[in-house]
Amino acid sequence: MTEFDLIARLTKSLPGNATVLTGAGDDCAVLDLGVPGHLVLFKTDAVVAGVHFTPATPPEQVGRKALARCLSDIAAMAGTPTAALITLALPKDFDAGHVARIYDGLNELARQTGVAIVGGETTTNPGGMLISIALLGTVPRGSQLLRSGAKVGDAIFVTGELGGSLAGKHLDFTPRLAEARWLAEHFALHSLMDLSDGLAGDLPHILRASGVGAELLKTTVPVSRAAKLRAAEKPPFVAALTDGEDFELLFTLASKEAVKLVDAWKAAFPAVKLSCIGRITKGSGLVIRDRHGLLPLNGGGYEHFRG
Amino acid sequence: MTEFDLIARLTKSLPGNATVLTGAGDDCAVLDLGVPGHLVLFKTDAVVAGVHFTPATPPEQVGRKALARCLSDIAAMAGTPTAALITLALPKDFDAGHVARIYDGLNELARQTGVAIVGGETTTNPGGMLISIALLGTVPRGSQLLRSGAKVGDAIFVTGELGGSLAGKHLDFTPRLAEARWLAEHFALHSLMDLSDGLAGDLPHILRASGVGAELLKTTVPVSRAAKLRAAEKPPFVAALTDGEDFELLFTLASKEAVKLVDAWKAAFPAVKLSCIGRITKGSGLVIRDRHGLLPLNGGGYEHFRG
Repeated sequence: MTEFDLIARLTKSLPGNATVLTGAGDDCAVLDLGVPGHLVLFKTDAVVAGVHFTPATPPEQVGRKALARCLSDIAAMAGTPTAALITLALPKDFDAGHVARIYDGLNELARQTGVAIVGGETTTNPGGMLISIALLGTVPRGSQLLRSGAKVGDAIFVTGELGGSLAGKHLDFTPRLAEARWLAEHFALHSLMDLSDGLAGDLPHILRASGVGAELLKTTVPVSRAAKLRAAEKPPFVAALTDGEDFELLFTLASKEAVKLVDAWKAAFPAVKLSCIGRITKGSGLVIRDRHGLLPLNGGGYEHFRG
Repeated sequence: MTEFDLIARLTKSLPGNATVLTGAGDDCAVLDLGVPGHLVLFKTDAVVAGVHFTPATPPEQVGRKALARCLSDIAAMAGTPTAALITLALPKDFDAGHVARIYDGLNELARQTGVAIVGGETTTNPGGMLISIALLGTVPRGSQLLRSGAKVGDAIFVTGELGGSLAGKHLDFTPRLAEARWLAEHFALHSLMDLSDGLAGDLPHILRASGVGAELLKTTVPVSRAAKLRAAEKPPFVAALTDGEDFELLFTLASKEAVKLVDAWKAAFPAVKLSCIGRITKGSGLVIRDRHGLLPLNGGGYEHFRG
């Protein structure tokens, strides 16, 4: 059984019940628990030593990142976070002061975002440290934004700049909670998600969920300064497509709304770049247009982008 | 910093907000998300290879146990479980078929208890397998049962039999969801929790939270057959006090209700033992009365109970 087969099997016939509006496969689960006017968002996310942080990462930033990743998923539904539980799986030789500093960073971000930390547990993890966050949020009924609503002709937008997150941004990014709520309040977005695995890995989630394709215009993809500074290691455009942990918003809306959006955005969030990077097309798959023509991106082909 | 200092520091000044009715320190967090007539319960629990199960444990039972432990915490608030997220942290050499079987066991228990599995994630865990469950539930407003309500003079009750869980029960116990809801509907319980760390470890949580003490009558504590069969390894009464993973209900109510409760229980749950094991007293701490007199149990003294 391959990993693809496994995930297909695991998610094919999961138990459901009447509260489930959106289950596995989107940024958060969406539940109707009977709150008048609101739906409940439910998400977990884990960071692991050696994968998401290193022994040299300041513990405050480890705790901050653990919560921030989960907050980005609430943003990806245009929701508001409410309460979190923290699972700390610790090696046997853990340092208590180190753990307290992890909580300091986590608690600071929780206070900034209005999240209550309502408990959790510590357990033993022989191999190293793992922090799992379970997060609840709410979203006005009908305002939740899924991956599955993209329509042919939609303009595709991305916030911020992409690539090179490992140079620092992955530890200090601000989840786009305010921006996502503003978008949902002021514009009829068709689809929304957050970028965690890189544009080339994540946009296909929207495409598959919506049954559409996409064409990106290479010159419009916003490449971060960090990616440009590391051009000797990796072509910056490839970094912007594949580096991951950008935690920016990726969304689509009717192209006739695009100009109005760009103008309103500049007034609302003058410090945050917003880029229209392409359009939703018929068919399936992702193609990139550059000065040489169209290049399909089916899980590779990045070596083309040296320039 | 000791582990005690750490937990005290971690839980002392956690961020809160207006939704939090009960935060860290009870079986579940209790949140008011605005559901008319109901409150929301929120809990996480993790099982770790080498701690909560072994390589020889059938994977279906590993998955079942992971969810059952969390369900027991919902029972401990007299709640009804709703939806769960599953975090699977896997070693690099994990076997996909093994993981699918974990889900089979977990999904079967979810279906039996009406729980929707609404997603989760798999991540790398260099040291071994860890399964964390995040679980939501609901409870009628005012019916949630905390650890902090025990009153002097209360009778102390426990369901089932205690000790020897490692012989098998820890893998196939049925969370006492129905029993706890029945108790909350029919009797004015003062406090309730589930037994996960053993009676001698868990009852003090109720005592500290309620600012009271307790006296147990040794001969009334229900000792499991599994604990009696292993008498050569450990005195059965000591096993009943300290073995852990019983996942039975421990609760108190006014002693004048005790006889009525025992009669009604026999009619409602004829197959489940219910035992009155002592009473809540003034002061603090736990003492045990046997034929020799009273013995304080302050984190030890078990060697007294050879008989």
